[in-house]
Amino acid sequence: MNKQISTNKFSVNGKEYVPPSRPVVVVCMDGSADEYLDTTMALDRMPNLKKMAVQGYRGMVRGALPSFTNVNNSSIVTGVSPAVHGICGNFFYDTVNDEEVMMNSSKYLRADTILAAAANAGRKVAVVTAKEKLRDILSYKLEGGIAFSAEKADQAVLETHGIEKVEEVVGHKTPPIYSADASLFVLRAGTALIEKGMADFLYLSLTDYMQHTYAPDTEESLAFYEAQDAEFGKMLELGAVIGATADHGMNAKIKSDGSPNVRFIETMLTEKFGNGFRVICPITDPYVKHHGALGSYVAVHMEDKSKINEVKDWLAVQPGITEVYDRETGCRILEQPEDRTADLLVLSGRDVVLGRTPADHDLNALDGSLRSHGGRYEEMVPLVISHPLNATYKRKAMGDPRNFDVFDFTTNGIQ
Amino acid sequence: MNKQISTNKFSVNGKEYVPPSRPVVVVCMDGSADEYLDTTMALDRMPNLKKMAVQGYRGMVRGALPSFTNVNNSSIVTGVSPAVHGICGNFFYDTVNDEEVMMNSSKYLRADTILAAAANAGRKVAVVTAKEKLRDILSYKLEGGIAFSAEKADQAVLETHGIEKVEEVVGHKTPPIYSADASLFVLRAGTALIEKGMADFLYLSLTDYMQHTYAPDTEESLAFYEAQDAEFGKMLELGAVIGATADHGMNAKIKSDGSPNVRFIETMLTEKFGNGFRVICPITDPYVKHHGALGSYVAVHMEDKSKINEVKDWLAVQPGITEVYDRETGCRILEQPEDRTADLLVLSGRDVVLGRTPADHDLNALDGSLRSHGGRYEEMVPLVISHPLNATYKRKAMGDPRNFDVFDFTTNGIQ
Repeated sequence: MNKQISTNKFSVNGKEYVPPSRPVVVVCMDGSADEYLDTTMALDRMPNLKKMAVQGYRGMVRGALPSFTNVNNSSIVTGVSPAVHGICGNFFYDTVNDEEVMMNSSKYLRADTILAAAANAGRKVAVVTAKEKLRDILSYKLEGGIAFSAEKADQAVLETHGIEKVEEVVGHKTPPIYSADASLFVLRAGTALIEKGMADFLYLSLTDYMQHTYAPDTEESLAFYEAQDAEFGKMLELGAVIGATADHGMNAKIKSDGSPNVRFIETMLTEKFGNGFRVICPITDPYVKHHGALGSYVAVHMEDKSKINEVKDWLAVQPGITEVYDRETGCRILEQPEDRTADLLVLSGRDVVLGRTPADHDLNALDGSLRSHGGRYEEMVPLVISHPLNATYKRKAMGDPRNFDVFDFTTNGIQ
Repeated sequence: MNKQISTNKFSVNGKEYVPPSRPVVVVCMDGSADEYLDTTMALDRMPNLKKMAVQGYRGMVRGALPSFTNVNNSSIVTGVSPAVHGICGNFFYDTVNDEEVMMNSSKYLRADTILAAAANAGRKVAVVTAKEKLRDILSYKLEGGIAFSAEKADQAVLETHGIEKVEEVVGHKTPPIYSADASLFVLRAGTALIEKGMADFLYLSLTDYMQHTYAPDTEESLAFYEAQDAEFGKMLELGAVIGATADHGMNAKIKSDGSPNVRFIETMLTEKFGNGFRVICPITDPYVKHHGALGSYVAVHMEDKSKINEVKDWLAVQPGITEVYDRETGCRILEQPEDRTADLLVLSGRDVVLGRTPADHDLNALDGSLRSHGGRYEEMVPLVISHPLNATYKRKAMGDPRNFDVFDFTTNGIQ
C-alpha cells in the first residue's frame, strides 16, 4: 500500500472504477497487431511482456470500428464505443453545413474521460501521446493533470500542459514524429513521471509509424519492441500495474508485385452510377507519410437516397470489398454515431485499402511498402495485463472483452 | 538429399507442387486459436514450435468460411475454397430432393486432393485423422497410400487403409475420441510412420475436443500443447519439413453468468414472420458432446423468396448477429458453392452461437462451458512453417495467405 496514492473510487459513463494504491499505467501500442508481439517474443526480446503474460493475462480483444487511431483512443479513455463518444474517424462530412470536418478536437467528444474522473478523484493523472493531434481529445476536461505530446514535448508549459521542461524531466530530446523514438519517448516519459512522483495514473499513447513501415520480422521492428519492453520493465520495477493494448492491428495492403492494392470507391461509383457520390476516407489526417490516407474503411454519401440499396448490393459483390452497410445496420454493427456517419459504410479485405479517387491520394508519399488498417482484419488486438486477474475479470476476459475495457481491467480486474 | 524420397513435381487444381526430398508433414491443429500457442509458448512449454517460428515462419492466415472442420480440412487437402471443392459444412439442405444431407463423404468432394496427386507422383502418402468421419474425404482417390483414423485405429486393414496393426506400429492403444490422446495419437502415428520409412508426405488432422472444453490457460490445455510439441520435435529430428495450421479458432460463447449465449434463429424468424423457414446448423455432426451442434454460422432456407430482403434486413439488426448475406453476396464473400448454400447466410459475434430451435439442441450434453466456432471471429488462424521461407513466399505471407495454402508453403515455399 502506498499511502500517497489515492484509492478513491470514481464513476464515468456508467462504470465504476476502483483504482489500486499503486501506479496504474495503460499503454496504447498503436498499430500493434498481435504478430508484432509474437515475433519479438519468440526471439526472447520482450522478457518483461512475457513476464506480464505469464504472471497476469494475455489475450485478444475486440477494438472499436473503424479500426483507426482516434476512434480507439477515444474509446479507451472513455470506456465506451464510438456510438457514445462520437469520434468515428479523423474526418466526417457534416451534411447540414456541407463541409468535411476534422475531428481532432475535444469539442467533438460526447463522453467524459476516465482520466479526468480519476484526476477529480485525487489521482495524479498524466497523458502522454506521441502525436500532438491526440492531446486535445485525451485531455478533455482534465484538471490538475499533465498532458503533452512527444511531438511537441519542448513546447509544453505549466499553465496549459501541467508540466514544463519536459526534455529535462524525461532525459531525452523531443523526437522526430516519423521515428521509433516518437513512441519510445512516450514510454520513457511515463517511467520518468512515475519515478519522480509526478503521476500515478497514466495513459501512454504511442504512434504507429513503425508498424506502417516495418513488418514484424524486420530488425527495425524487433529493436523497437525490445526498447518498448525495457520501459515496461522499468515501470514494473516502480510497482506499476500495466495494461497494454492496441487501437488497431496492421496488415500489408499490397498486390503480389508489392504495389499498393487500392480500390478507388468514388471513381468506381461515378463510373457505374454517374455523379452524386462523396466518399470520405476517415483515416485522412495531416500525417500522410505512412499510409497515404488509404485505409480499409470509407464512408459513402449519396445525393440520390432512393438508390442506396442498389448501390449497396453492387458494392457488396465487388472484389476486395468485404462488408457494406446502410446507415441503420452500420450504426448497430459498427457502433457508429448516426449523425456523423454516412449512407453507406464500406470495409475491405485483409490486403485491400479503399480510396476516393486516384487524384486524392499521393502514393509517392509512402515511405516503403503499404501497410495499413481501418477494417475488420485489424479489429482484433492484444490485451496484456501485468498482474493476475480476479475471478470476475477472468470470466469477463472469456466473453467479448474490448480494448476499451483496458482501464476497467487494470483498475477493477486485478486480484 | 534423401534419394529414396521422390521430388517429382505434380499439379492439382491449377497449382504446381515441387516437394523437397525430405518428409513433408502438414498438421491441422483443429481448433487452435492463436491464443493456445501464445499461452503455452509464454510458459516455455512449446520449445519446438518456438524453434520453428524463429528459424522458419509464424504468422496469421485466413481460413475458409464457415469456420468449421470439414470445410477447412477439405480446403487444406485440395488447396482451394469451398466454392470449388463443394464441402460447405457437415450438412446441407438438398432443395431438389427435400432432404438434409450429411456431407461426411468424398462423393460430395468436387476437387482432387494434393495427397492423391502426391501419391501418384511417387510420394509415400499417409493421412491420419483423429475422427473417422474425415477419413473418407481426406483419402479421396488416394491410391497406394495409408489412411486411417485414431478413433478406429484398431480396425485398419491393409486392403482398405493401406496399413494394418496400427497400434503396434504407433506403440499406443486406440484412444477414446473425447480425449487429448485422440489428437496425440495422430501425431505419434506421424512420427512412427516417418521413422519406419512408411510415409514421406503426411497430412495429420487433429480434433478439437480439448479446445471446445478447455481455455488456453488451463493445465489440461497446456499439457496437451506441450505433448503436441514433443511430437513436432521428434518429426524435426527425423528431418521433416512441418507446416502447422488450424481449421478454425475457438471462442467462449457464453453470457456473463457462464451460460451458453445462443440465438435460436428458426424460432426468432417463425415468431416474427410466421412459418416457412428451415434453418440448417452445418456444425451438426454425430459428435455433439463438445458443442451441442451450436456454432456461429447458420444457413436459412425460405419458402417465400419475395421476402428475402425484408428478412435479411431484420436479421442484420438483431443483437448478436454480425453478418447476413443473400445467396449471391454470400457466395462471393464466404466462397460458398451456390447449389449447396441457402437463401440467407448468417454469422454471429465472438461470444454468440446460433441454433435452430431450443428443441433441436441438447445443452445438457455439453461437457463444461460452451466454446465453439463457425463465424468470423474464428476465421484467422496461425500458420507455422519449420524452415525459412524463400523470397517469393515471404512476399506471399504478407498479402492475404490462406490456411489452405499450407501445402503450397510447405512444398514450394522453403529455401
